[in-house]
Amino acid sequence: MEEMHEKGLSKNQVLQQLESKLKADLAYDSGKILGSMCTKAHEFAEQIYVKCLEKNLGDPGLFPATAELENEAIRLLGSLLSNTESCGHFVSGGTEANIMALWAARNLSREKQREVVIPVSAHYSLYKAADLLGLRPIKVNLNEQFQVDTTAVKEAITSETLAIVGIAGTTDLGVVDPIPELSEIAMTNELYLHVDAAFGGFVLPFFKELGLANFDFDFKLPGVSSITIDPHKMGLAPIPAGGILFRNGALMKGVSVEVSYLAGGNTEQSTIVGTRPGASAVAVWALLMHLGREGYKTIVNGCMDLARTLAEGVERMDGVSLVTKPVMNIVGIKSNRLDVDVLARKLRRKGWAISLFPKHIRVVVMPHVKLDHVHNFLKDLEKIVKEIR
Amino acid sequence: MEEMHEKGLSKNQVLQQLESKLKADLAYDSGKILGSMCTKAHEFAEQIYVKCLEKNLGDPGLFPATAELENEAIRLLGSLLSNTESCGHFVSGGTEANIMALWAARNLSREKQREVVIPVSAHYSLYKAADLLGLRPIKVNLNEQFQVDTTAVKEAITSETLAIVGIAGTTDLGVVDPIPELSEIAMTNELYLHVDAAFGGFVLPFFKELGLANFDFDFKLPGVSSITIDPHKMGLAPIPAGGILFRNGALMKGVSVEVSYLAGGNTEQSTIVGTRPGASAVAVWALLMHLGREGYKTIVNGCMDLARTLAEGVERMDGVSLVTKPVMNIVGIKSNRLDVDVLARKLRRKGWAISLFPKHIRVVVMPHVKLDHVHNFLKDLEKIVKEIR
Repeated sequence: MEEMHEKGLSKNQVLQQLESKLKADLAYDSGKILGSMCTKAHEFAEQIYVKCLEKNLGDPGLFPATAELENEAIRLLGSLLSNTESCGHFVSGGTEANIMALWAARNLSREKQREVVIPVSAHYSLYKAADLLGLRPIKVNLNEQFQVDTTAVKEAITSETLAIVGIAGTTDLGVVDPIPELSEIAMTNELYLHVDAAFGGFVLPFFKELGLANFDFDFKLPGVSSITIDPHKMGLAPIPAGGILFRNGALMKGVSVEVSYLAGGNTEQSTIVGTRPGASAVAVWALLMHLGREGYKTIVNGCMDLARTLAEGVERMDGVSLVTKPVMNIVGIKSNRLDVDVLARKLRRKGWAISLFPKHIRVVVMPHVKLDHVHNFLKDLEKIVKEIR
Repeated sequence: MEEMHEKGLSKNQVLQQLESKLKADLAYDSGKILGSMCTKAHEFAEQIYVKCLEKNLGDPGLFPATAELENEAIRLLGSLLSNTESCGHFVSGGTEANIMALWAARNLSREKQREVVIPVSAHYSLYKAADLLGLRPIKVNLNEQFQVDTTAVKEAITSETLAIVGIAGTTDLGVVDPIPELSEIAMTNELYLHVDAAFGGFVLPFFKELGLANFDFDFKLPGVSSITIDPHKMGLAPIPAGGILFRNGALMKGVSVEVSYLAGGNTEQSTIVGTRPGASAVAVWALLMHLGREGYKTIVNGCMDLARTLAEGVERMDGVSLVTKPVMNIVGIKSNRLDVDVLARKLRRKGWAISLFPKHIRVVVMPHVKLDHVHNFLKDLEKIVKEIR
């Protein structure tokens, strides 16, 4: 089909074509998707989302109630991140959030510095942000725990440095950088510090009460300027629902533009995108209200349990091992003897949608992953490892 | 509510709170929204959208069928815009599309030029794009038909010029710039030409067959490098569904990054955002198939008819007049005797969500606007005009 039909097809004809065409897609319910940081959204959030399809936060004056719910939900996230004074928005995802953070940092910098110190473990969106914004990413290596090496961060800082990035839940291993030290470095050098907690933001706040290792990573630390926290990852919201929180309104001003002509009246827009689905904000609000801290704690606990089961299974297996003890519900599997590319290819041939990094395979134990999926995966992994050896 | 509840509320409690909180929002069905370029989506598109909430085009290997439907839908739009070789994506909206165009232009420029020639009638997203990308917007004035003055465009071009922007459907008046002349200027000077047809892209292609003034604005013109065309405006798709089409794959390369670790395998990502709702792409595909050219022609015809009714009503009225004869279904209302700010305030007090520009009120006659809404609006306008005089 290369040209639009002159006469359209009936709804039934289109639905029939769709049904057959969409068969090749995977689904979270299959339990085969083990390498995505997205997941099946909570059904209550989906129920709310579909009621709100027309609400557009690009023209908040038309949808003032939705705009107010967004503010309320942002304040709830602020409380989760130890700062009820923070402000921000639900955006398209972690990429937009990370770009916004560096955009704000750049626009607030009077001195026109152009270097950003970024751990080598950073998400590619930070390099995309640097390219867009004309910034030079200065890459910093990791310590033996795969966290950013803070001595190297200090050494990387020059008169050209604009901002530092820390990560609370790295893409490849779910490791948390030493954000308290980064906060001190940022304070000492008067630099903007952005924390990418796209994944960890809905995980780490519950660790203390779950009796797990506690990490300080949020606005409790005085040097933290902004945080990415994505409801559509461990927050169980439907996509698209990323989140960006700034420590205060003054920082968000760095990315604000006046839009004066809108049907709902003047607005100050502080996102990259214009039209923005209000459904996302309302769904997040409803889910935060419905699950409460307890609901999220239970979800995190379940994922951490399964991640431990997976990690223990890998440790018991000959031929493969853990890259590091999982910090969150992300498990890195490596091998000193086998080629991980071959391993990954064979796993994918058995239908497992895992992630492949240069030296390891990543499994993200999201809420859609159940115990029997983990068992089946371990069985297949063991079979493949035996085949290859 | 400033802190997350420890224990969540029941679904019913949340739904009850939502119902009461959301009352302040306007709805397209009310017919009171006369100043938005968004509209109530076609119910078939909504039906498809809600079936596809989990499909994520940020990891196309997981959803290969959805990715293929996106490609098919982009090819259909390409045919609508006279170029079946074009490629592109459905993005968050016109803002992301416009940023992508200038990003591509900047990254493809070997000489590092930094100036973009932009009509003063351009959407604010083009200035946002310039700020993000570190480009200097060179503003060019309009001729008496509110189109960009092409003589001024020629004069604005220097050795620093990177790109020219033309608009097919200006934000304030729905006017179409002389794109054929801009195309020639772009060819002569070897410049990138981006056409912002966010609004006009789903309107202008049907004008010839409807017996309306024909405008050349698309890839038929050899100088056009990229086009913004938003399905969530006159394309009747649910938000978020913007569109960006590049003349060919080489141009899109300017914004491509390799993402290698994804669960679905390697991908080349050519959007600003990462996670991207597949539901938007599938809904657009389904709607293009269901409506066909004929369906869209009927919708455009209806909107143009109503816009004429509105324009004639304004022309007959004492005290107000048209800024210009409407080119598309966008009507600009001015007054030589009355203060349009006062007029707008009084219209808004009567519940009319119209847009306000420095010297005129804008009504966008979208598909959700019906004949009785137009009549009621004209009645209220007449009443207010008589009050003020």
